[in-house]
Amino acid sequence: MFMKNCWYAAAYSGELEGGSPLGRTLLNEPVVMYRTSDGTAVALEDRCCHRHLPLSLGTVIGDRVQCGYHGLEFDAKGQCIAVPGQSRVPPGATIRSWPLVERHGFLWIWMGDPGAADESLIPDWWWTGDPGWGFNPGPLLHIRCNYELVTDNLLDLSHLGYVHKQTLGNDAIVDFPVKTERADNMVRMTRWIVDRPAPPLFQKAGGFDGMVDRWQIVESRPPGHTIVYAGCGPTGTGTPEGPREYDEGIHIRALNAPTPETDTSTFYFYGHVWDFRLDDAAWKQEMYDGFLQTFLEDVAILEAQQQSIDRDPGRGWIDLAVDAPSLAARRQLEARIGLEAENGTGRA
Amino acid sequence: MFMKNCWYAAAYSGELEGGSPLGRTLLNEPVVMYRTSDGTAVALEDRCCHRHLPLSLGTVIGDRVQCGYHGLEFDAKGQCIAVPGQSRVPPGATIRSWPLVERHGFLWIWMGDPGAADESLIPDWWWTGDPGWGFNPGPLLHIRCNYELVTDNLLDLSHLGYVHKQTLGNDAIVDFPVKTERADNMVRMTRWIVDRPAPPLFQKAGGFDGMVDRWQIVESRPPGHTIVYAGCGPTGTGTPEGPREYDEGIHIRALNAPTPETDTSTFYFYGHVWDFRLDDAAWKQEMYDGFLQTFLEDVAILEAQQQSIDRDPGRGWIDLAVDAPSLAARRQLEARIGLEAENGTGRA
Amino acid sequence: MFMKNCWYAAAYSGELEGGSPLGRTLLNEPVVMYRTSDGTAVALEDRCCHRHLPLSLGTVIGDRVQCGYHGLEFDAKGQCIAVPGQSRVPPGATIRSWPLVERHGFLWIWMGDPGAADESLIPDWWWTGDPGWGFNPGPLLHIRCNYELVTDNLLDLSHLGYVHKQTLGNDAIVDFPVKTERADNMVRMTRWIVDRPAPPLFQKAGGFDGMVDRWQIVESRPPGHTIVYAGCGPTGTGTPEGPREYDEGIHIRALNAPTPETDTSTFYFYGHVWDFRLDDAAWKQEMYDGFLQTFLEDVAILEAQQQSIDRDPGRGWIDLAVDAPSLAARRQLEARIGLEAENGTGRA
Repeated sequence: MFMKNCWYAAAYSGELEGGSPLGRTLLNEPVVMYRTSDGTAVALEDRCCHRHLPLSLGTVIGDRVQCGYHGLEFDAKGQCIAVPGQSRVPPGATIRSWPLVERHGFLWIWMGDPGAADESLIPDWWWTGDPGWGFNPGPLLHIRCNYELVTDNLLDLSHLGYVHKQTLGNDAIVDFPVKTERADNMVRMTRWIVDRPAPPLFQKAGGFDGMVDRWQIVESRPPGHTIVYAGCGPTGTGTPEGPREYDEGIHIRALNAPTPETDTSTFYFYGHVWDFRLDDAAWKQEMYDGFLQTFLEDVAILEAQQQSIDRDPGRGWIDLAVDAPSLAARRQLEARIGLEAENGTGRA
Repeated sequence: MFMKNCWYAAAYSGELEGGSPLGRTLLNEPVVMYRTSDGTAVALEDRCCHRHLPLSLGTVIGDRVQCGYHGLEFDAKGQCIAVPGQSRVPPGATIRSWPLVERHGFLWIWMGDPGAADESLIPDWWWTGDPGWGFNPGPLLHIRCNYELVTDNLLDLSHLGYVHKQTLGNDAIVDFPVKTERADNMVRMTRWIVDRPAPPLFQKAGGFDGMVDRWQIVESRPPGHTIVYAGCGPTGTGTPEGPREYDEGIHIRALNAPTPETDTSTFYFYGHVWDFRLDDAAWKQEMYDGFLQTFLEDVAILEAQQQSIDRDPGRGWIDLAVDAPSLAARRQLEARIGLEAENGTGRA
Repeated sequence: MFMKNCWYAAAYSGELEGGSPLGRTLLNEPVVMYRTSDGTAVALEDRCCHRHLPLSLGTVIGDRVQCGYHGLEFDAKGQCIAVPGQSRVPPGATIRSWPLVERHGFLWIWMGDPGAADESLIPDWWWTGDPGWGFNPGPLLHIRCNYELVTDNLLDLSHLGYVHKQTLGNDAIVDFPVKTERADNMVRMTRWIVDRPAPPLFQKAGGFDGMVDRWQIVESRPPGHTIVYAGCGPTGTGTPEGPREYDEGIHIRALNAPTPETDTSTFYFYGHVWDFRLDDAAWKQEMYDGFLQTFLEDVAILEAQQQSIDRDPGRGWIDLAVDAPSLAARRQLEARIGLEAENGTGRA
């Protein structure tokens, strides 16, 4: 059971270029996306109401998508408006449509009650369009695991020292405790790693060769929109007790939106923004490659974890201190899903 | 549930050359076919009664097939007649056999009551052996879809303009209505496309550079034996109101026998016959290649359609005017299957 | 349902070199094996109790295995003894461990009641370490069939004339009957093939160019530990009525331990020992290659047999005289499994 009245990342903006429709299963539903003649992206049911061929195998004609089997045409609202060989469109010849909004380099779909779709609830990932920040989207990762395992992964960064030894991890992380804050519809995990060497990627990023103060601040909102605020500066130039991040050093945010394909598979959308070496194309590429390698290390772990869970789905697990943030996020999401079952909106 | 008391195409004649047994699942049953020493093709259960190895992994020895595991030998009726190492054949050491008849370049199997097998019910595809016609069989296509979707496809040729734009389709088709005739055990779809350009394949076939009158006459009989009478001649040289096909122009028949492998997979047997350019080997090859390309376009559509249906098997669909023939054929087949359940023969 | 209170081959000794943990499913359970710092092999549940990642993706550190996700460490008894970032190990942070014993070139696991594990029950394959014998282990074969089909195969060598014509088979085998002996916890099949040509592999092995007396003596003990005593000598130099094997000729034993991975898949461990041409490395390689080819011929048959059984699991089969040993072995195994269900040990 998924939360429905919320936005999910459905595609990267760049995936809808070229004029072809794009088919993708989201929350177990077949979805086709395309751009109308003015560039507006729309999302319809990816199944012709006539003989059920996916419309993603068809053709975009102006504002319409035409089925590739018998030529039925649907408008951007999912209404069939042309049937080859007959003047009358049969009653009921409609397919579902969903609100789809393009923002911050992503297309966001609302799969619940269309009347409740509120664009102000789209994650505010403003850095992606800000000249003071660099931005690397994606690529899209398809992971054969439940999407909540991805959020668990992001909210427990103690795994960096084991899964990502070559890039982000080092032994220092687990020496410092995490703080968990629960807000309305948000969980925040904070860890300050004080007076320790920078991990390999940060050493390359900022040229740090002495000790640094490093922060990991992770904010996650249902259904799993998660920002990782990461960075470091020379030891003593800031303070964990002060503002959320301090001005010194380098700042990176990892923007994460894992979207369920099915109960046991996920489309993992992500991007990185950073505020240093903005004119350095080689560095931009290095960021892209480094984080992709890191995320692929996670994919291997997450898929093995899902397979292990599937062997014995009812088996419990042991919780540790570092699990407090991910457990809090799971509880928030579960509460939202419960509220949707009760009142249809998921809002208290 | 399949119709059983009827003939299904089980193989092309050419598939049984070379002396090896051929294993194939038909209507969910494992079938092995081979030729006895006089060339007669036989069909037996593809499972040794001893330890269940498929006999198709064994060897043909004279009129018998020998199991490849422990050497049991079965005659053409499925009776075990030799057990290595013992003189007595155990009682009950038999496997099923089915009537198998070779005709028109195909092997036809009767999977229902053997006593009811009537060779006069084999489709009369006489053109395949007639010197006035060319004949291209196959090749065998394996399609991951229910076999009735193949018959639907053949009875609604409005898809030619969308699926087969490069070969058989053009926009003209859907401008002309279809006529549906229901006979005893047969549905006929007729469409005349009058005074329009010929499609690409027909232009090449007959050198038509002006307008043509083109016909599509499709006759389908349960469980899906379907002949497509197709052709065209110069506009005005014939009449839709006249005989079923007229003497002018070029004549092609597509002979189709989709056989269920399982509920959701099909062996699609087909052949084409034609009455022009009979001595032109290059044209024969071009026919073969052109129709194969066309049919592979259908395979892609049909498999995507089946996958889409499987996502939500109970979902209804919208019918159009062009669906009248295929709906009539589905009803005829359903009635035959219902009669078999009632009286065991499928005949009223 | 498997017999649990017995030893199963879990790995070849050589598979645990190199310091990495080895994950393998045995009797439907996930098992990880590794060597502690003194070389002792241990077997634990291949699933971290924290977030269920297989420990086989982790790292061996001294006597411990460390989870590759969050760094939990487990000792050789399955007790978690270190959790990064917290001093206290949560109660219940343990995983299963199983007795694992290294002997005769194999690692043997006891998956039932650990208190009942008795090393004297490990198959006594002493030849593997004896200077008077050559020894070729493995390689490991993974077969998509139930493990009892492997034992059936070994206890009915009438298949040699059909499956292994090129190596071990010839027509002579089935001319001679088998004798079946049932002992406590053991079935013995004996066949003497008297005054016949040697099969191809034996001709090469012993240079036999005349007639030979050849024996096949197969002893199988639950859950399927099976020794094939095979060999031959010049005709008349020994006697079938005499000792179990006579001194003349060449002696080969095939040591077989098929271990269930799941109900329909098997890890097939095997080895061959022989008492001739012991200093001939080329012959050793020829034995390895020849038996591997032979066993791969069996794999093809066994997998096809399992697929055929899976099509219609309830269908009975016909028994022959040659099936007496395998049927006796199946009954012994079934009785042991029944006893385990009754009294937990499987011993009468």
